[in-house]
Amino acid sequence: MQMDRDRSIYLQTLPIQEAIQAAKDKLDKKNLLGRERVPTQEARNRITDTPIYARFSSPTFHSAAMDGIAVKSSDTFGAREGTPVELEENVDFVYVNTGDLIPEDKDSVIMIEQVNQTDDNTVSIEFPAFPWQHIRKIGEDIVATELLLPQNHKINAYDVGALLSAGIWEVEVKKRPCIRVIPSGDEVLDFERKPSPRAGEVIESNSQVLINLADNWGCEVSRIAPVADNEPDLEAAVDRGLDSDAEIVVVCAGSSAGSKDFTRKIFAKKGEVLVHGISAMPGKPTLIAQSGNKLLVGAPGYPVSAVICFEQILYPIVCWLQNQPVQTRPRIPLYLTRKMPSKLGQDEFVRVSIGKVGNKLIGTPLSRGAGVLTSLTRAQGMVKIPAHYEGWSADKQIEAELFVPERELEDVMVCIGSHDNSLDLIKNELMGMEHPLSLASTHVGSLGGLQALQNNSAHFAGSHLYDPETRDYNFPFLKKYAPDKDLKLVNLCIRHQGLIVAKNNPRGINSIQDLTREDVTFINRQKAAGTRILLDDKLQDEGIDPQEINGYDQEEFTHMAVAVNVATGAVDCAMGIRAAATALDLDFIPLARERYDLILDAELMQEEKVQTLLELINDPVFQRKIRDLGGYETYLSGQFMHPGQGLQE
Amino acid sequence: MQMDRDRSIYLQTLPIQEAIQAAKDKLDKKNLLGRERVPTQEARNRITDTPIYARFSSPTFHSAAMDGIAVKSSDTFGAREGTPVELEENVDFVYVNTGDLIPEDKDSVIMIEQVNQTDDNTVSIEFPAFPWQHIRKIGEDIVATELLLPQNHKINAYDVGALLSAGIWEVEVKKRPCIRVIPSGDEVLDFERKPSPRAGEVIESNSQVLINLADNWGCEVSRIAPVADNEPDLEAAVDRGLDSDAEIVVVCAGSSAGSKDFTRKIFAKKGEVLVHGISAMPGKPTLIAQSGNKLLVGAPGYPVSAVICFEQILYPIVCWLQNQPVQTRPRIPLYLTRKMPSKLGQDEFVRVSIGKVGNKLIGTPLSRGAGVLTSLTRAQGMVKIPAHYEGWSADKQIEAELFVPERELEDVMVCIGSHDNSLDLIKNELMGMEHPLSLASTHVGSLGGLQALQNNSAHFAGSHLYDPETRDYNFPFLKKYAPDKDLKLVNLCIRHQGLIVAKNNPRGINSIQDLTREDVTFINRQKAAGTRILLDDKLQDEGIDPQEINGYDQEEFTHMAVAVNVATGAVDCAMGIRAAATALDLDFIPLARERYDLILDAELMQEEKVQTLLELINDPVFQRKIRDLGGYETYLSGQFMHPGQGLQE
Repeated sequence: MQMDRDRSIYLQTLPIQEAIQAAKDKLDKKNLLGRERVPTQEARNRITDTPIYARFSSPTFHSAAMDGIAVKSSDTFGAREGTPVELEENVDFVYVNTGDLIPEDKDSVIMIEQVNQTDDNTVSIEFPAFPWQHIRKIGEDIVATELLLPQNHKINAYDVGALLSAGIWEVEVKKRPCIRVIPSGDEVLDFERKPSPRAGEVIESNSQVLINLADNWGCEVSRIAPVADNEPDLEAAVDRGLDSDAEIVVVCAGSSAGSKDFTRKIFAKKGEVLVHGISAMPGKPTLIAQSGNKLLVGAPGYPVSAVICFEQILYPIVCWLQNQPVQTRPRIPLYLTRKMPSKLGQDEFVRVSIGKVGNKLIGTPLSRGAGVLTSLTRAQGMVKIPAHYEGWSADKQIEAELFVPERELEDVMVCIGSHDNSLDLIKNELMGMEHPLSLASTHVGSLGGLQALQNNSAHFAGSHLYDPETRDYNFPFLKKYAPDKDLKLVNLCIRHQGLIVAKNNPRGINSIQDLTREDVTFINRQKAAGTRILLDDKLQDEGIDPQEINGYDQEEFTHMAVAVNVATGAVDCAMGIRAAATALDLDFIPLARERYDLILDAELMQEEKVQTLLELINDPVFQRKIRDLGGYETYLSGQFMHPGQGLQE
Repeated sequence: MQMDRDRSIYLQTLPIQEAIQAAKDKLDKKNLLGRERVPTQEARNRITDTPIYARFSSPTFHSAAMDGIAVKSSDTFGAREGTPVELEENVDFVYVNTGDLIPEDKDSVIMIEQVNQTDDNTVSIEFPAFPWQHIRKIGEDIVATELLLPQNHKINAYDVGALLSAGIWEVEVKKRPCIRVIPSGDEVLDFERKPSPRAGEVIESNSQVLINLADNWGCEVSRIAPVADNEPDLEAAVDRGLDSDAEIVVVCAGSSAGSKDFTRKIFAKKGEVLVHGISAMPGKPTLIAQSGNKLLVGAPGYPVSAVICFEQILYPIVCWLQNQPVQTRPRIPLYLTRKMPSKLGQDEFVRVSIGKVGNKLIGTPLSRGAGVLTSLTRAQGMVKIPAHYEGWSADKQIEAELFVPERELEDVMVCIGSHDNSLDLIKNELMGMEHPLSLASTHVGSLGGLQALQNNSAHFAGSHLYDPETRDYNFPFLKKYAPDKDLKLVNLCIRHQGLIVAKNNPRGINSIQDLTREDVTFINRQKAAGTRILLDDKLQDEGIDPQEINGYDQEEFTHMAVAVNVATGAVDCAMGIRAAATALDLDFIPLARERYDLILDAELMQEEKVQTLLELINDPVFQRKIRDLGGYETYLSGQFMHPGQGLQE
C-alpha cells in the first residue's frame, strides 16, 4: 500500500453553524417534506401542515353544568329564605345530571344541594336562580369553524382531545423526515447477528444511537446491514438510499480521510460535497453533501464523534425541515473539579459527571476520547468550550447543558478517588432504594480523591493509602493532601491485592521477582494510584529497580482495565485486586491485604444521601454481596476508623 | 325520579398528596409490575429491572486511533529533525487505518501527516514515537463484566449504543404499567364511529387525552368502546378490566355524586374506596379505589378535571410504580394581567396564556371552566393556587409551570382586546413564517385591550371603539383608558357589523326595531365589547329601551359564540360581524361599517415580532385572505391611523 494513494483530504473545516447553513442553503425546504393524513388519536407530536378548523361546536347544546334541577329562572325570582317557592316536577322543573340537555323552556339550573324535596313530585327552593346559572352554553369550549390549531403546530395530548371533540377524525400533518442509515466498514459486525467480536472486529452500534436519537426528534429511520469498505458496495447502498423515501442518507463511518474512506468520493459523484470536516472535537470528520434535493451525511466512526455530528449538525437541520424550533437542553452553572484545557479553533464538547456537593454543583470531566461512548452514558451533562477559548480553569463557574432533569442532580452522590469493584455494587444498590440515588464515580487514584475532598468536589473518596512507617492506612495522608478538611473514615472493605495472571498461569509467575523476567510483560496503574504505591513499596522491599520491569511505564486507570489486558493476552501480568481477576476468570497470586476506606467530608455527613450510603455499608446483606465478588473481607465494613488502627478491628 | 335516590355522597375530599399516598399505602409495589426482556435497540425509555454488566470489552483489542503507521516505539527513539529514521514496510512498520488492529510486535502509531515516503517500501520519520501513542487500548470504553447500567435506570439513546457495543442484545426491563380505560355515559359517542353529535350528545375524547398522556409516561394503554350509564354494563366492563393485564383501571366519567354515577358503588363492590373527591379545582370528583393489588380510578367527566386527575394523581402513582422520579415541568416567574381569586380549601389550577411583553413575562388567565379543554390547548402554562391562598393579585410576581419550552415564550405575541375572526388568520399566518411566531390572543373587548396596554400586558390590542361625538375611532379613548402609554394605531380592516339571523331569516328580522318583538330572542356581547357599545348607540338612536329586548342580558364573549347560538336555534338573532355569519352559513342584515384597528405599544414597535406582524398586515395576499372571510374592506389595512381620520383613507 502506498501513502496518500486514494486518500481524500479534508476541505477547510467549517464551524458548526456554517456547516448547518451550507446544508440549508442548498435544500429546497418547501418541496422536501410531503404531507399525510393520520388518525387524530395517533397524531400526538406530529406537526400540522395546514390550519385545522372545528367541524362541530362543543358542546353543541346548552347543557347542565351541575347535577340538580332545570327551571325557568323567572319562576324562581320570588324565592327567599323563609319564603320558599314550590316547584312541580315535569311542570316547573326537571331533574338534570351534569351534561344533560336543558329543555327549551328552561334557562337555569339549581344545584341539587339547594333543593328541598317536599313530596314525591314537588320541591321547594329558598333562593332565586339567575338566568343561565350552572349552564354550559353552546360552544363554550369550541365553536364550529373556529381555528383549532394553526399550521406548524406540534400536536399534544390536549390537542388530540380538542380535535376529537370538534369532530376532526383525521389531521393533515407533515410527513416525518425520513433518514436512511448505512453502517459501513470491513471490521464492523452487525449486532443483529449477535456476533462475538474477535481482535480487529467491533460491533456496529452507532446506527442504533442515531436511530434512537432521530426517533426522538420525530423522524422515521430505516437501517440496512453494514456495508463493506469498498467503493462499489458503498456506492450501491448510497444509490438505494437516494432512491428510497429518505430525505437524508447517512453513511456511518468512512467519512474521514483514510485510505479506505470512500464516502467523500461517492458523495461527490452523487452531487456536491458541501462540508468535509467541522471545527469540532469530537466530530471533526463530518461530511455533508447534497444530491438533488436530498442530504447526504457522512458520520464519523467514533461513537462520540458520531453523536456530536448527529446532535449538533443533523438535529438542527431536521428541526428546520419541519419548521420547528430546536429544543435545547436545560443549562446550569457549575464548577469544575479540575481545569479543562482545549485547543483553539474548534468547539470542544466535554462530557461531565455532575452532582451537588453541599450547595455547589460540581462537574467532573470524563474521558475525552472520541471512542469512549460510556463518557456519554456516565455523564449528567456536557460542557462546550467554544473555538475561541483555550479552555476553562478549575474553580471558574461555567455552564453545562444537562442530560438529566436538574432536580435529579440533588440525588447524585459524587465519589472521586481510588477504584474498587465494590463501587459498582454500591452504585447499583443505591439505585434500588425507595428513593433511588445515583453514584457518579470517577477514578483518579487515592491521592486524587483526597485532593477532590480538599477542593469540596466530592461527597467521599475511596482510598487505600498505606504508610509503611506508621503501618496505618489513609490517616497519615490526610493532613498533607486535605489540610483544610474535617474528614471521617469509614471502612468499606479489606481487599486482597496481588498479581493478576492468565488462567492457569501459563507463564508460571509466582512472585514479584518474576516481573523482571524478560519473557514477562506487565501493565501498571497510573501515578497516584494506591495500587501503584503498593507495588513500588513491594519493589523497594525486594530491591527491584522498576525499569527492570517490562511495561512498568504502561498505565491504566482501573483494576478492570489492567485485568482485561491480561485476559486478552496483551500483557502477561498486572497488579490489582482479586475481584478483577475473578470477574474475568483469571488467576491471582495474593501479595497483600489492605484496607479500603471511604473518606467522607464531615460537613456533608448529615445529608440524607450520605446517611443512606452509610446504612447500606452496614447492611450485612450488602456485605455478603461484597464478599461474593471474591477477595474481600468485611469485618470492618461500615465502622468508623481511627488513627493507628491498621487492619485491626 | 326522586332526589337522592341512588345518589352517592362525597367522602371527605382529600388534598392531592394525601390522595396519592392513600393509593401508595394500599398497593404492594414490589409485586405489581412484572419484568420482560426486550431487544436492546428497542429499549430506549424502558427502565432496567436488574443491573446490566458488559459481556464484551470495547474495544476488544489494541487498535489504531489514527490513520498512519504502526511501529515499535523503541525503533524510533533516535529520530530527530534533520536526523530522520528510516523504516521499511512490513518489517519496521505497517500502514494502519483508524480502528485497525495493532500487530503484536508494535506498540505505537505515527500519524500519516508525520510520515515521509522515501521510496515504494520505505518511509522516514523525524520525531520519536512514544509507547502507546495514538492507540486505543483494550477496554478503553468498556471492560467485560463491568457494570454498564444499574437497576432502575431509564435507558437512553447513548445507553443503547453502549449496551450493543458490550454484546448485550436484550435487556431485562420493568413491564410498562398497563392502564385500561373505560369511557362511560349514555350521552357519549364513540369517536371511532365518526359521529355527528345531536343536542344532548357529546363526542368522547377524554380517553384519548389520557391515552396520549399515559403513552408519554411510558405506559401501555388499552381502551374499550364507551359503556352506557347502567350498573350491570359498567360493572361488567370494570370486571373485564380487572381480569386483564392492566394494573390500573380507569372509568372515565360517572365518578361524581349524580344519580347516574355508579362508579363509586361498583368500585366499593370490587374492593375498597380510598378517595372520593380531592380538594382540587378542577378535578374534584376523582375517585380512587383498590381491588386486590390493582388500582381503580374514577376520572371526572369534564375534560380539564380529567386532565388534573390524570396528571396530578395518576402520573405520580405511575412514576412511583416504576421507581422513577416525577418529571416536573419547568417553572417560571411571571406577572398576571388581572387578579386571580380562588376559593380557600382547594388547590386551583388556572390555565394561562404566557408571552414576553417587553422584558416581562405576562400571564393572562384563560377560562376556568372545567369543560373548556381549549383552555389547555391555548395555554402556554398553568398556575397553581394552593389551598391556603385566596388567590393572587395582579402585578404580583407568581410562578407558573410551563407547557412549552421557556425559550418559545420569546416567540409569543400577546394580543388582548376585541375579538375579530381575522385574528385567527393572523395567528395561522404568523406560524407559517420562516421563524414561526405564536399569537396568544384573549378576548376581553376593546376597552379591556386598552387597559391591558396601559398595564404593559400586551403587544397590541384589537379595538373598534366609535366615538359618535368626534365620529372617530379609538383615538378619543386612548387618553382615558391608557393615559400613560405612547400608542400607535394601525388599521387591520374595515368590517361590517349587523344582525346575524338564521339561514333564510325565518323570523323576518330586518332592523334593530325587530329586536323588541316578543317572538324574537337575542343574545348580547359582554360589557366593554365594542359591538355592545355599537348596539347601545343604535338603540339610543332609535329610542329603544334595552330591556325591551328579550335576551339583552344574555352575554357571550366573541362574535362566533353569539353566532353559534343563532346557528343552533338557541336564539333568533345576535349582533356581530358578517364574517361570523358567513362562517356558520347564517344570514346577515348589515347595520354599520366600522374601523377595526390594532393599537400597538410604541415602546415595543421595534421588536422583530411586531415588525413581522406589520409586514404581514401590509401584504396584499394576506389582505385578500381577510376579504375572503366576508364582510371586510382592506383599503386602510396596514396604514398608521391619525386622529380624526374616521373611515376615510
